[in-house]
Amino acid sequence: MAPVVGRYLGPMFGGIETGGTKTVCAVGIDGAIEQRTQFPTGDDPVALAERCAQFFAGKSVQAIGIGTFGPCDPDPGSPHYGHILATPKPGWSGVDLLGMLAPRLGVPLAMTTDVTAAALGEQRYGAGRGMSNLVYLTIGTGVGGGAVVDGRILHGATHPEMGHTRIPVLAQGGVCPYHGDCFEGLASGPAMATREGRSGPEISDDDPAWDLEAEIVAAGLHAITCMLSPQCIIVGGGVGSRGGDHVHRADPTDVARRPDHALPSEAGHLVADLAERPGDRL
Amino acid sequence: MAPVVGRYLGPMFGGIETGGTKTVCAVGIDGAIEQRTQFPTGDDPVALAERCAQFFAGKSVQAIGIGTFGPCDPDPGSPHYGHILATPKPGWSGVDLLGMLAPRLGVPLAMTTDVTAAALGEQRYGAGRGMSNLVYLTIGTGVGGGAVVDGRILHGATHPEMGHTRIPVLAQGGVCPYHGDCFEGLASGPAMATREGRSGPEISDDDPAWDLEAEIVAAGLHAITCMLSPQCIIVGGGVGSRGGDHVHRADPTDVARRPDHALPSEAGHLVADLAERPGDRL
Repeated sequence: MAPVVGRYLGPMFGGIETGGTKTVCAVGIDGAIEQRTQFPTGDDPVALAERCAQFFAGKSVQAIGIGTFGPCDPDPGSPHYGHILATPKPGWSGVDLLGMLAPRLGVPLAMTTDVTAAALGEQRYGAGRGMSNLVYLTIGTGVGGGAVVDGRILHGATHPEMGHTRIPVLAQGGVCPYHGDCFEGLASGPAMATREGRSGPEISDDDPAWDLEAEIVAAGLHAITCMLSPQCIIVGGGVGSRGGDHVHRADPTDVARRPDHALPSEAGHLVADLAERPGDRL
Repeated sequence: MAPVVGRYLGPMFGGIETGGTKTVCAVGIDGAIEQRTQFPTGDDPVALAERCAQFFAGKSVQAIGIGTFGPCDPDPGSPHYGHILATPKPGWSGVDLLGMLAPRLGVPLAMTTDVTAAALGEQRYGAGRGMSNLVYLTIGTGVGGGAVVDGRILHGATHPEMGHTRIPVLAQGGVCPYHGDCFEGLASGPAMATREGRSGPEISDDDPAWDLEAEIVAAGLHAITCMLSPQCIIVGGGVGSRGGDHVHRADPTDVARRPDHALPSEAGHLVADLAERPGDRL
């Protein structure tokens, strides 16, 4: 029998994104996706872990990285590493997600928040290649951000909650149940829909509603820039990638009204390379 | 001749803080100051470098760390590492501070912003010992912050400008020449003096003016917490350390109106251990 001749491309790694609505599993080599699947996250963590295990069965991955909806405990040194913390999402408060996945997957796992995983992904394989300091920001149903600092992901005591930063109030009727008019309360898809009295798909890409949205986004980008001084902010999410590049109209220096030295001129914002950009997610 | 008998305590290191008004030079062993001096920073960088050299002459320091007023370039990989950037301070725009000091001091030097140096100092020897993620915030003539992330200082593209983060407007008449009502524009000593129509020394530690100041500070602490998730925020500066512990009245969760999971309950703020706290600096 002739030997099987193949080309070794490098080690295969796996990824899991557990989102608020759907979960995506994928395997890939050097950042290129070879195979992927998705299914509803649902309200039964055990069933979700089983579905993930089915996908990875027989695939020779070296390790799997997990990006999850939050809040979660992403600290490998914590006894609650990999747990979902208190969440309004039914069935998920306090769930030991990593503990459920580990015995079923049988390879080394690492877990962080979905946006932190996206920040790392964009830095390694996407719009942030070659940069060591960047922020990934998603603007969609919610607003959230993850950061890479000096090439390493930022967790801090738990993890950032950038979407809940309070910004100057540029519009009325913020929808965050906690703060009303925080960044998420003003910039998210539901906020925009409530403000405009129209659902996302009804707002066309050249609608003037994007002007105010761009101003609000700029305020958020300015706050991120003041706090973290990233080389760039990569914007994804259903809203963040819509509106005829409204993100590119969002200029933090407009909001800053401050000379370049406080907002380095080389800093900018980019649209995510890797994130999905479904126009219907607004 | 009998040999000199001494006890070797460890290597001696030096420190220089070039502030907007005064410059401090010190030497110490393992964080304990052995000797220090101070003089006006002035508007002649060469004269300043000479005075620093005089202090360190004959002192056997292994290396010297420099914390400077900003904006500056703290990136060791940059061709402008150690330069002061555009500043309204007379005589200092574009000055190569590190380049002036290096030949005069003759030992390895490292430079960062004053607040970043303070963050590192508090983490190694002060109120932040044992923590790997913290922010040092000074509230005085200006407002500025420096961060330690995973035990390492955060610079990003240039360095944070936390004082210029815009926060919810809780008072009228912010004094920042760039933003009016940013954190510095609302919380600094000049802001408070302008708002109250009285100079700092005229405002006693139990004055009701501190209630509004505490609320503004809480908004700033909340923004820092959302962005960086520090284990603690250490507050120093002439205003930050006054007002009958008004800092301890500043509770970011008040401003947050959000369950603990977004603002970790173990996070708190502390008064700086190492910073001077002159009551007359307000």
